[in-house]
Amino acid sequence: MPSNRRWVLASRPTGTPCLENFRLVETPLTAPADGEVLLKTLYLSVDPYMRARMKNVRSYAPPFDIGEVIEGGVTGEIVESRHPQFKKGDFATARLGWQDYALAKGERLRKLPPDKSLLSASLGVLGMTGLTAYFALKEIGQPKAGETVVISGAAGAVGYVAGQIAKIKGARTVGIAGSDEKTKFLTKDCGFDAAINYKTAGNIRKALKETCPNGIHVYFDNVGGPISDAAITLLALKARVIICGQISLYNLEMPAEGPRNLAYLLVNRARMEGFLIHDYEARFEEGLADLHQWLKEGKLLNRETVTQGLEKAPQAFLGLFEGKNIGKQIVKVS
Amino acid sequence: MPSNRRWVLASRPTGTPCLENFRLVETPLTAPADGEVLLKTLYLSVDPYMRARMKNVRSYAPPFDIGEVIEGGVTGEIVESRHPQFKKGDFATARLGWQDYALAKGERLRKLPPDKSLLSASLGVLGMTGLTAYFALKEIGQPKAGETVVISGAAGAVGYVAGQIAKIKGARTVGIAGSDEKTKFLTKDCGFDAAINYKTAGNIRKALKETCPNGIHVYFDNVGGPISDAAITLLALKARVIICGQISLYNLEMPAEGPRNLAYLLVNRARMEGFLIHDYEARFEEGLADLHQWLKEGKLLNRETVTQGLEKAPQAFLGLFEGKNIGKQIVKVS
Repeated sequence: MPSNRRWVLASRPTGTPCLENFRLVETPLTAPADGEVLLKTLYLSVDPYMRARMKNVRSYAPPFDIGEVIEGGVTGEIVESRHPQFKKGDFATARLGWQDYALAKGERLRKLPPDKSLLSASLGVLGMTGLTAYFALKEIGQPKAGETVVISGAAGAVGYVAGQIAKIKGARTVGIAGSDEKTKFLTKDCGFDAAINYKTAGNIRKALKETCPNGIHVYFDNVGGPISDAAITLLALKARVIICGQISLYNLEMPAEGPRNLAYLLVNRARMEGFLIHDYEARFEEGLADLHQWLKEGKLLNRETVTQGLEKAPQAFLGLFEGKNIGKQIVKVS
Repeated sequence: MPSNRRWVLASRPTGTPCLENFRLVETPLTAPADGEVLLKTLYLSVDPYMRARMKNVRSYAPPFDIGEVIEGGVTGEIVESRHPQFKKGDFATARLGWQDYALAKGERLRKLPPDKSLLSASLGVLGMTGLTAYFALKEIGQPKAGETVVISGAAGAVGYVAGQIAKIKGARTVGIAGSDEKTKFLTKDCGFDAAINYKTAGNIRKALKETCPNGIHVYFDNVGGPISDAAITLLALKARVIICGQISLYNLEMPAEGPRNLAYLLVNRARMEGFLIHDYEARFEEGLADLHQWLKEGKLLNRETVTQGLEKAPQAFLGLFEGKNIGKQIVKVS
């Protein structure tokens, strides 16, 4: 049996997390028990929501314990199976952890097709973040042809997929992102109608107003904070706001303050709703079928930022809060 | 022809409105033209939303012009009719103005039953505010038996009806109001399960948390500001928030700031939606039928604060922002 390297939580961050909050430990591997498989990690996912689990606060998911492996999406290859539905060489994905290998009950894994070219996509456009974009738009955003959809964090793992789906649905799509490289990616590669670099745009409300002369019908929020404040003042009648992420607030130790703007919801009879993908687990096949189809037809572009090596997982995670990734941030482990 | 006294907008308020913003003028009356009626005002309505129309800002309703009569709900008696559906002595209600008489096209009026005892109710529990409570709960709040409904501004015209309807639907109902007289009215007269006097409760979040141990399933917001901040941190999974009014903010000249709390929507997959009764005009009969029935069965208490005399209309309006009214604030004109 090889030994297993695993990233554990060393300490809880104050403010922005740093490398010292993580520790790489090596533990012996044991053979799978009856009903279990041993999975070798090929790719792992780092995602902003993990920041919340580093706090000692009960949220929709329990906090990580100190010394516990950092849990997250993993795609890998079965190297040993004592579960009837898996055999050696199968590919599978599950919520496991930042480690070389994982022992897991077979029921926890979703088997993947033997297409190696789409393995990492199972953590992105064909995984949690793609499904988040898909169901959040389908169930809350409901963009109609001709409507204007604005997406914050638009070059991130959820945002760039959401914008492309909005285009497929016939909506006018405007992305907000933090570099010219990202805004170019959105308009040139992803087909967004417009993109705003919030770091250079000056007055973000003015920039949004000019770009959305008929108001914002769907605001897909991944960031929170001042960008959302501006978007909410420009909502159209009966607008829908998806609260999908609030990455600009996750590292704050003190609650931030912003304008009291609920009157904009009232005047426009707008709706704002929080979204979590876990509520849609029973419907993943429905989402994956559409996402697969759009990929195959070339209507949906897959973009990943890939960091090499398990040892770099914390850096890849920390990079999310600096906006280093375009598309889905993946770590290639093996 | 008698002459007509009418309250017009004398100037736009800065901050809290005052008597000097209104002027009583006297104008000659003319006889109704073909298709018109002459209505003698018996009762008129003063409502917080009118504050927004005193600003020179286009919202869902256009601003009042300087020198223009203050528009609002009126219930009166037809004194002359040149419209086939109305005859002298009929009672009717319409959006008219703060004046002794109004000339109006018959189409703008809704005829009322000849029951004098319910005339003022046509501006409250059987009018706009009752219908607001009814449709906002039915379409957005959707309280289920056993759920906890929290209502801010609970002793106001919309709030006390909303709480009673929530009780009819089997929900646990908690009201927030600004005096012991009001909280007593809510629990003793309206059957609320609990009521909190926010002026004496100290920490409003702590008081709410103690009163709502299972979280808040429906938050019916009439006030905005710090009370809403507290309620939003206590939302239950899949909670619904009705943004019906934001009276605590209407008189502010500068936008107020408060905690950025949209992450509470995300974590709880909660929904927040703005509500305006005008969207439901085609369904008023449906709401009035239920409200009438509940009144008749004694399940719904009608409470009004009645101010005597057209000359007192501005005082009655200003009193809304000091919380002087319990139930619907009405002005009895004639």
